[in-house]
Amino acid sequence: MDLSLYITGVDLLGTFVFGLSGGTVAIRHRLDVFGVIVLAVAAALAGGMLRDMLLGATPVIALADERYLLVAVAAALVAFFFKPLISRLGKPVMVFDALGLGLFAVTGCRKGLEYGLDPVVSVLLGVLTAVGGGLVRDLLVTEVPRVLREEIYALAAFVGATVVVVGEYLVLADWLVTLVGISAAFSVRVISVIYGWSAPRSPWL
Amino acid sequence: MDLSLYITGVDLLGTFVFGLSGGTVAIRHRLDVFGVIVLAVAAALAGGMLRDMLLGATPVIALADERYLLVAVAAALVAFFFKPLISRLGKPVMVFDALGLGLFAVTGCRKGLEYGLDPVVSVLLGVLTAVGGGLVRDLLVTEVPRVLREEIYALAAFVGATVVVVGEYLVLADWLVTLVGISAAFSVRVISVIYGWSAPRSPWL
Amino acid sequence: MDLSLYITGVDLLGTFVFGLSGGTVAIRHRLDVFGVIVLAVAAALAGGMLRDMLLGATPVIALADERYLLVAVAAALVAFFFKPLISRLGKPVMVFDALGLGLFAVTGCRKGLEYGLDPVVSVLLGVLTAVGGGLVRDLLVTEVPRVLREEIYALAAFVGATVVVVGEYLVLADWLVTLVGISAAFSVRVISVIYGWSAPRSPWL
Repeated sequence: MDLSLYITGVDLLGTFVFGLSGGTVAIRHRLDVFGVIVLAVAAALAGGMLRDMLLGATPVIALADERYLLVAVAAALVAFFFKPLISRLGKPVMVFDALGLGLFAVTGCRKGLEYGLDPVVSVLLGVLTAVGGGLVRDLLVTEVPRVLREEIYALAAFVGATVVVVGEYLVLADWLVTLVGISAAFSVRVISVIYGWSAPRSPWL
Repeated sequence: MDLSLYITGVDLLGTFVFGLSGGTVAIRHRLDVFGVIVLAVAAALAGGMLRDMLLGATPVIALADERYLLVAVAAALVAFFFKPLISRLGKPVMVFDALGLGLFAVTGCRKGLEYGLDPVVSVLLGVLTAVGGGLVRDLLVTEVPRVLREEIYALAAFVGATVVVVGEYLVLADWLVTLVGISAAFSVRVISVIYGWSAPRSPWL
Repeated sequence: MDLSLYITGVDLLGTFVFGLSGGTVAIRHRLDVFGVIVLAVAAALAGGMLRDMLLGATPVIALADERYLLVAVAAALVAFFFKPLISRLGKPVMVFDALGLGLFAVTGCRKGLEYGLDPVVSVLLGVLTAVGGGLVRDLLVTEVPRVLREEIYALAAFVGATVVVVGEYLVLADWLVTLVGISAAFSVRVISVIYGWSAPRSPWL
């Protein structure tokens, strides 16, 4: 399968789940239907927009390809009309967020490598792409962003992006690397929430 | 009249009224003269900067054309020295904000079309341009951004940008489309505030 | 000495001290080690990223040159492990922040001039570069950004950037202009804190 088609697919899926997370946060904050769309679109598109602006891949893909916007709005409407279904997932924002985190960490890092960036900075780009959407979402409702509030968050994105860099180095098949990267980021994030893992604090607190 | 001159004029007017809104918010928060300038410049320039960074129209117009900065600073000084005059307008921040919303929704959408974007995404770009300045302004003083707090806000920008797309499609005169687009966005916003219109909330709240 | 090497050195130093400021803020907020890294990287890189996105100097230098990321992470680790040493400085966040402010005001303004911007807007770019990192840092921990909370802050960056423009005009040696610009911004900021200087408020409060 063609690689760029592949990345677009993964990217659009990330757009959808981050859109769901944004829409669900908006409903929890009792926003109206427009607020739900705004927050879904912001959560879904901000990470990729940041990635493309930093790379200079402009017009950013979320503007150049109208499917991104349509997918984000679709996610908003799904969140708006099917809230009870989504709520049965238990912690829906966390789960969608964790999946989006993995998907965008992988596509962000791969796009960095494609643009000839050093692997180390490609990982940074993956992390920024992954945390960007949730960051804007949380800032808009003036919550402390999940990336700082939660213990293992940026780390999960870091793990997913690192898998891509290692996979590239070992010349593994793209679909395999993508799958392992997404799963790794998602698992690290979800398991850390379930088990309440936390990272060390400064010894000097 | 030359179209790009035209857009620049509308854009500079939007810069001025958003600058007034930023300056007025700063004074209400009892900030000093520098705080007033910072907030006016942020509110006036952030939306257009975001638009140009997303498009890759760099250096962004607010840097390439020094009039934008001068207009923003002028708005700050007007807000600083003529506060009582401005206050007589009743709800000055809301009024300037609504006008800026309409002006930037129109120029943002038109610039998107000029760059060959799909009409649907051009509308998104218009909305982002329109809400960007107010968003940064409100985040800076850690208020919940108007775009989420107020019921009909992003929608007003959406209406203004949609007028541009429809006008382009019908090959109407640019000045007419511009005028109708700005008026539509401004009216939707101001009337919704006056009558306390609100949009539907999720049925599952 | 080659000018661009020179700027890179000053830029990396700014990256380091803003990283320290971000790391120290994170520790004060009792964040874990990843939170410290996230906040240090954000504070260290956001200003320069904003500058380069606005200019269209992409991929932004913080991605194109991996030393920026490494320096930012190093600053995070120094903050994490040597907190007591840093605390002896009295007001460490303020001091690092003031130094970063001067360093980035100078490099931001100079980069604007290099890209052929008008001197007036180059000063704006210097100020944006200087305040960007601290802004993102403070927003992430939902504090009112220093740039609005503190009286003389954007002004200090403005002074530093203005020195560069004046120095360029007078064709002074680059090292001298750089040194005077950084010192001026740093001094204005630190002295204003020590003496509790404040700027005039609107006469109409």
